[in-house]
Amino acid sequence: MSGTLTVVGLGPGDPRYLTPEANAALTNAQALYGYGPYLDRVPARAGQTRHASDNREERARAAAALNQAAQGAHVAIVSGGDPGVFAMAAAVCEEIEYGPESWRVLDVAFVPGITAMLAVAARIGAPLGHDFCALSLSDNLKPWELIERRLDAAAGAGFVIALHNPVSRARPWQFGNALALLRRHLPPATPVVFGRAVGRPGERVEVTTLGAADGKNADMATLVIVGSRETRIIARPGKSALVYTPRAAVEVNA
Amino acid sequence: MSGTLTVVGLGPGDPRYLTPEANAALTNAQALYGYGPYLDRVPARAGQTRHASDNREERARAAAALNQAAQGAHVAIVSGGDPGVFAMAAAVCEEIEYGPESWRVLDVAFVPGITAMLAVAARIGAPLGHDFCALSLSDNLKPWELIERRLDAAAGAGFVIALHNPVSRARPWQFGNALALLRRHLPPATPVVFGRAVGRPGERVEVTTLGAADGKNADMATLVIVGSRETRIIARPGKSALVYTPRAAVEVNA
Repeated sequence: MSGTLTVVGLGPGDPRYLTPEANAALTNAQALYGYGPYLDRVPARAGQTRHASDNREERARAAAALNQAAQGAHVAIVSGGDPGVFAMAAAVCEEIEYGPESWRVLDVAFVPGITAMLAVAARIGAPLGHDFCALSLSDNLKPWELIERRLDAAAGAGFVIALHNPVSRARPWQFGNALALLRRHLPPATPVVFGRAVGRPGERVEVTTLGAADGKNADMATLVIVGSRETRIIARPGKSALVYTPRAAVEVNA
Repeated sequence: MSGTLTVVGLGPGDPRYLTPEANAALTNAQALYGYGPYLDRVPARAGQTRHASDNREERARAAAALNQAAQGAHVAIVSGGDPGVFAMAAAVCEEIEYGPESWRVLDVAFVPGITAMLAVAARIGAPLGHDFCALSLSDNLKPWELIERRLDAAAGAGFVIALHNPVSRARPWQFGNALALLRRHLPPATPVVFGRAVGRPGERVEVTTLGAADGKNADMATLVIVGSRETRIIARPGKSALVYTPRAAVEVNA
């Protein structure tokens, strides 16, 4: 019997975002692996084993799942959002590249999900309506200087910027420094969106500007979208504001 | 009676990507608007009117849908992939900003979907596993010089690059020029993925390198992912290759 490993994107959290493909992959798995809070979103099924692990144990989790699949089981690893965006899919590929031959010949599949930046953008309008980039502010796995260089390049060239992992307990100053750096490229009126826990209990979406944005308003569950010079805020009487980036861009030199 | 407008992401095409939230929005609409081939993906429902329009008529489509919603109807506009990524959500916001007051006070909602770059990435591994950007190669609505500047910035700073709209009948040379520009920043072995019609009939995914990539291999239905210097290809005996970008990045100066 041949085992399989499927890396499944759960989307932001609420079941209304879970695709039928992801749902089928969860149903068919004999064993589920994942970060505890993500596994808790998946209803229990008789006969299906569950293996929760901690947030920072991606490589060990991937190895354990690959090992069980190589022994013939149908295994799924769950990931919040999309597994391919700052999540489990890369960790699984790393293990496959450097692991035993039996892992390289396994049937492996990746099931996409609604990633956080798409969910936050949908709550507020269309801030990612034109060219944008997605950047992790975590300097656990890359030097801070590289993050600064990427922020400079993206803001200088007019990309909207989705900032993942802005803050953690071990990284208290990085987001504030990133905002200060972006203020050197972009005017104070540039729209900024803070999306916290979007699609989950405790959801909070705030629209502000780069001039007024406070680094203390983000936490581990927050995704931040910093607009370009083209991004606009539409005030609406009696309704929440919309934020969008027009499809046409005219500026060549910032 | 208050009308509503919902902008709905259908995902790549196959119903297995359609979220329950999108499905509910389609079911509840009294009128559906969209580009003909996208509308064709939605099963017909009794009592629901359908208004197909051409690819390049986004503003007129958005205005017609807003107008009907302002008259009290529950209206949905469908979009391929995610409506917020190079799609209908920005066109709707443009119309709301510059249209009559009655459009600004409407209940408007955006339903995210699996966007093409996530679907292509999932087919091949995790090429978007670390910092990346999404860039439209269409110079219909922005100058080509701005596209070149953004390609320079993104490749120079080590972002993986997802190229949307690489080619159309009216834009035959732009994608080849973009590849030539990227070759000035990145080594010939840099992985490149061509994902054509992913999630639809005629799907074809090709892994090549920047040195070997041929601009003629893309069409209007193709999304191209150009790796960074960190992106890797895993050859697998008897299986298709995996492409991924590791979670750790070390390089500061390209």
